[in-house]
Amino acid sequence: MDELRLIPVRGVPEIQPGEDVARLLAPLLTQLARPGDVLVVTHKVLSKAEGRLVDLTDVQPSALARSHAQAWGKDPRQVEVVLRESGSILRMEGPVIVARTRHGLVCANAGVDRSNVPGESVCLLPDDPDASASRLYQALETALGFAMPVVISDSFGRPWRLGIVNVAIGLAGMAPFTDYRGRTDPHGYKLEASLMATADAIAAAAELVMGKTDRVPAALVRGLELSGSPGCAAELIRPGEQDLFR
Amino acid sequence: MDELRLIPVRGVPEIQPGEDVARLLAPLLTQLARPGDVLVVTHKVLSKAEGRLVDLTDVQPSALARSHAQAWGKDPRQVEVVLRESGSILRMEGPVIVARTRHGLVCANAGVDRSNVPGESVCLLPDDPDASASRLYQALETALGFAMPVVISDSFGRPWRLGIVNVAIGLAGMAPFTDYRGRTDPHGYKLEASLMATADAIAAAAELVMGKTDRVPAALVRGLELSGSPGCAAELIRPGEQDLFR
Repeated sequence: MDELRLIPVRGVPEIQPGEDVARLLAPLLTQLARPGDVLVVTHKVLSKAEGRLVDLTDVQPSALARSHAQAWGKDPRQVEVVLRESGSILRMEGPVIVARTRHGLVCANAGVDRSNVPGESVCLLPDDPDASASRLYQALETALGFAMPVVISDSFGRPWRLGIVNVAIGLAGMAPFTDYRGRTDPHGYKLEASLMATADAIAAAAELVMGKTDRVPAALVRGLELSGSPGCAAELIRPGEQDLFR
Repeated sequence: MDELRLIPVRGVPEIQPGEDVARLLAPLLTQLARPGDVLVVTHKVLSKAEGRLVDLTDVQPSALARSHAQAWGKDPRQVEVVLRESGSILRMEGPVIVARTRHGLVCANAGVDRSNVPGESVCLLPDDPDASASRLYQALETALGFAMPVVISDSFGRPWRLGIVNVAIGLAGMAPFTDYRGRTDPHGYKLEASLMATADAIAAAAELVMGKTDRVPAALVRGLELSGSPGCAAELIRPGEQDLFR
């Protein structure tokens, strides 16, 4: 493996609901992208374009939302939206609600986020991030004339570590994992259970050139040697029966 | 932020116990590294040099180790080593023991690893990864004539996601986080609880150019704009009182 380059995609304008994201990105990527690149896009670009915004002034908080908000100094309307986006709640004994979203993603506040959103609205996760990734992948292939894997990223906290790192919540055009299983190391010892979540590592890496305040919502990763059959980000979610911490 | 480069450090020979890692890396880094680079090294380089290897033929497994090994088809001597390296056990109802190491790191099998180790030995985590990082940082500064932050990485599983990503278990010369708190986004909305675990993102990124089978145990990350006061990887560990999942 030679070196990798992480290239910020600058000049992406503020996204309006209904925007065609591929059409917006294509002129920038025509200049910048090359075959072999992987595109990473923060989910908010897709969420905003898909109209996954909720105006809090329209939200009537439930009793549970009001109770939690009062306990922790939160906006009850925003808490209500979190509850609505949750398939189930893992923890809500503190200010952060750890929820499993309808997609099966375990994250803080069900991915509901107020930052980088104008006014009194909040941004939700895309309804189907893998489908969003596939649509973008196909549209960009048409626009650019070559296929470019797409990673849709979001920032997740971790149960036993502080701070957040980005992971892949949507994926198209590449395998989510690099499977070292079955290979041997230089000593001939079989590598078991060495399944690198490559799409997550790519998302984490891309955040180093993107930035929550910089209006750089996308990046290219150049130089990867990808292997395996293309899949989706849903494959990165640990199935319930293997979940030791539900 | 301009683009980042992830550069593999090739030509690192197999590490023997007692090896001076800085002396081993310095000739390679003199060629390759520049001021501003961050060095990422897989923990095994430090662990092997520090003699953190256990010959399984010397290990007498306990009853608990034998019981777990029998249930899951494991080597009872290796299970015994896992138990010895654990401060506490979170889960051992399945083949993987999820333990909190003596350092406070929550990971599979207390970081005990048989791959990339000759014969019937296993490799442990460094006794004090932050101290290992500091020693390497200081020795390389002397050897190279400039200071280069050091990240010591290891591969961790995640409770709700499949596959592994790398995190920083040792750190010197840089802040573990990039703190977006107190900043505002382009809409003027305050970014709360946006603490990017930059050292973990760097570790994850570096793994994309390192590889479990390639004998590339180190990489340089070039182009980062680091901020904040230097700290250590122990700061990335969530304190017990904030741990919702112990």
